[in-house]
Amino acid sequence: PRSKLPDVGTTIFTVIGQLAAEHDALNLSQGAPNFAPDPKLVDGVAAAMRAGHNQYSPMSGIDALREALADKVERLYGVHYDATTEVTVTASASEGLYSTISALVHPGDEVIYFEPSFDSYAPIVRLQGATPVAIKLSLPHFRVNWDEVAAAITPKTRMIIVNTPHNPTATIFSDDDIARLKALTRHTDIVILSDEVYEHVVFDGAKHHSMARHRELAERSVIVSSFGKSYHVTGWRVGYCLAPAALMDEIRKVHQFMMFSADTPMQYAFADALAEPQSYLGLSDFYQKKRDLLAHALAESRFELLPSEGSFFMLARFRHFSGESDSDFVLRLIRDARVATIPLSAFYTDGTDEGLIRLSFSKDDATLIEGARRLCSI
Amino acid sequence: PRSKLPDVGTTIFTVIGQLAAEHDALNLSQGAPNFAPDPKLVDGVAAAMRAGHNQYSPMSGIDALREALADKVERLYGVHYDATTEVTVTASASEGLYSTISALVHPGDEVIYFEPSFDSYAPIVRLQGATPVAIKLSLPHFRVNWDEVAAAITPKTRMIIVNTPHNPTATIFSDDDIARLKALTRHTDIVILSDEVYEHVVFDGAKHHSMARHRELAERSVIVSSFGKSYHVTGWRVGYCLAPAALMDEIRKVHQFMMFSADTPMQYAFADALAEPQSYLGLSDFYQKKRDLLAHALAESRFELLPSEGSFFMLARFRHFSGESDSDFVLRLIRDARVATIPLSAFYTDGTDEGLIRLSFSKDDATLIEGARRLCSI
Ligand SMILES: CSCCC(=O)C(=O)O
Ligand SMILES: CSCCC(=O)C(=O)O
Repeated sequence: PRSKLPDVGTTIFTVIGQLAAEHDALNLSQGAPNFAPDPKLVDGVAAAMRAGHNQYSPMSGIDALREALADKVERLYGVHYDATTEVTVTASASEGLYSTISALVHPGDEVIYFEPSFDSYAPIVRLQGATPVAIKLSLPHFRVNWDEVAAAITPKTRMIIVNTPHNPTATIFSDDDIARLKALTRHTDIVILSDEVYEHVVFDGAKHHSMARHRELAERSVIVSSFGKSYHVTGWRVGYCLAPAALMDEIRKVHQFMMFSADTPMQYAFADALAEPQSYLGLSDFYQKKRDLLAHALAESRFELLPSEGSFFMLARFRHFSGESDSDFVLRLIRDARVATIPLSAFYTDGTDEGLIRLSFSKDDATLIEGARRLCSI
Repeated sequence: PRSKLPDVGTTIFTVIGQLAAEHDALNLSQGAPNFAPDPKLVDGVAAAMRAGHNQYSPMSGIDALREALADKVERLYGVHYDATTEVTVTASASEGLYSTISALVHPGDEVIYFEPSFDSYAPIVRLQGATPVAIKLSLPHFRVNWDEVAAAITPKTRMIIVNTPHNPTATIFSDDDIARLKALTRHTDIVILSDEVYEHVVFDGAKHHSMARHRELAERSVIVSSFGKSYHVTGWRVGYCLAPAALMDEIRKVHQFMMFSADTPMQYAFADALAEPQSYLGLSDFYQKKRDLLAHALAESRFELLPSEGSFFMLARFRHFSGESDSDFVLRLIRDARVATIPLSAFYTDGTDEGLIRLSFSKDDATLIEGARRLCSI
């Protein structure tokens, strides 16, 4: 058949995951914890199933979860979303991104996003018959060059996709980024699609700049987030979208046909979990310790580590490349050091190779220590 | 924002579900059981969570489930699908339909489908910039008029969507339907998208004509099915697609960005359940008893019942309409009889009103008996 995505292969996360399994490598590639969630959460799902919550939920999600989300967001970020019309439970943040882009981006539109980036943004835009406009983050620190963004905006620009904390570079937005984003989108009808799945994983006392913290941005933003990352259950496929009602109306039209509804027993468990804010408020500390553990264990290695301000990731540069590509180096690491990572080039549509790999530290401490030991051997 | 689906509102299932709740009506509308699944299945999910199966699965699904599906399909229908390249676990049949149409239907293509129909087909096609071509099933028995299909095929026809057992009319394909479908699509590159979510719910000893039973059709078909309908857990959001590798390649490209993967602990539970074929082989008998119970209880009512050959549904005609539309009648039933059903017109894009309502008998016997009692009062 004629392909809509002729140059797309299997997502890098599945490719590397399979290689890791074949070579019995420690997997520091995907942002998926290898440790257990809170047993109370598991019990919550079991209890919901036994209480009979096994059938379709309303397409926007169960009331209790939408209300708990609206409360949480208002408490943390200060903006009020109406639980009935402005909050939708999605079957993962991935589905939320897909529904949002499908609903709001028309053929011929342009969508600005930043590279390196999570690998779904550009293909989803292309599937709408629209044009993804990649702006490269500026090295060495992978910051947004807002002058380039300003120059890239055209009358066709329909959306800007932002992501803070950022996967894969582990940077976070600053006050200045927010000010520039406000100024650039003011008096336009550009929608900001804000991927905030790492909202609770921000280090060194920094604050997360949710679009929901800035009323002016919230009014033109769709915020996508996920429970998988915040509750150590990436395989449970429940996320959510927040948006002004006029945008949410359109997103729901697509979501209801794409997924109808998200997993019902998990929704009940998350609604209960949200009632205890400590279930997510401790997450930054938890992951900062892991970041520091990995960095410390790699201090004597031949890797230079880039700063990680948030997310589950850090970038690393191998000081002794033998002229090989980052992908070949990653293959060598899997085979010889038996550690799986992701080459940064996989997050660029043009394969830009900066000689960097992405390490995930969303792993138990023993895995981080053993992973670092193996990486030190190379 | 400019809408891609300006004439689409909230899906009828959520609208009627909310009305039913407001009026404390018995809900015979959606095809969602109101009884519990097998406790072993619930225990299976709990055990999978406790065994640590809580993270992303591979994007195509866990091996054990894909292999169990390939085995089942070969055993029941005789066609072999390769578990690695031709079977994909999706996050619901809805997602499977959406991924398939998104992957294979290009702007300007035409897609033939039959009305009345499940409400997602046409909007998904329109979201691709393609044209849904509705062919009305012929009354009184809602059969496909294949001559009309032949006349509707053009060089732009990319896909025909079939659905047997059929929602909402409860008809099933006959040998003759299959022969005509074969003849019409032979030597074309038309893809058959076959929605078979009610594959295990076929009455009176009839057999289900899966496209997988007909090698010639299987070669040009994408089969979509679901665990929700077969295991009484419509809220668990796990389905699957079967397709030849060349088609599946394209479907996976979209699926991996739409959903990444389906719910992991549920996948483990379904893999175990499939090892016991009686878990689905008894389903036709189970639902036939419910169909007969409802029909019997309505024998003295003022409803004429249309035959139900499969699915969870039967259509009914009220003999004493007072000139009202089927939608107004449904509202009256909710208010006055406190029973929720779906007007058949909701399954036609042009609102065709045949004076019929759809009843779901996927309910416990007490609900069916009480529902019939209330319907007899009108
Ligand atoms: C579906 S992969 C989601 C993101 C992630 O886990 C990663 O980037 O590793
Ligand atoms: C998402 S609704 C699925 C089909 C169904 O249950 C119905 O037609 O009632």
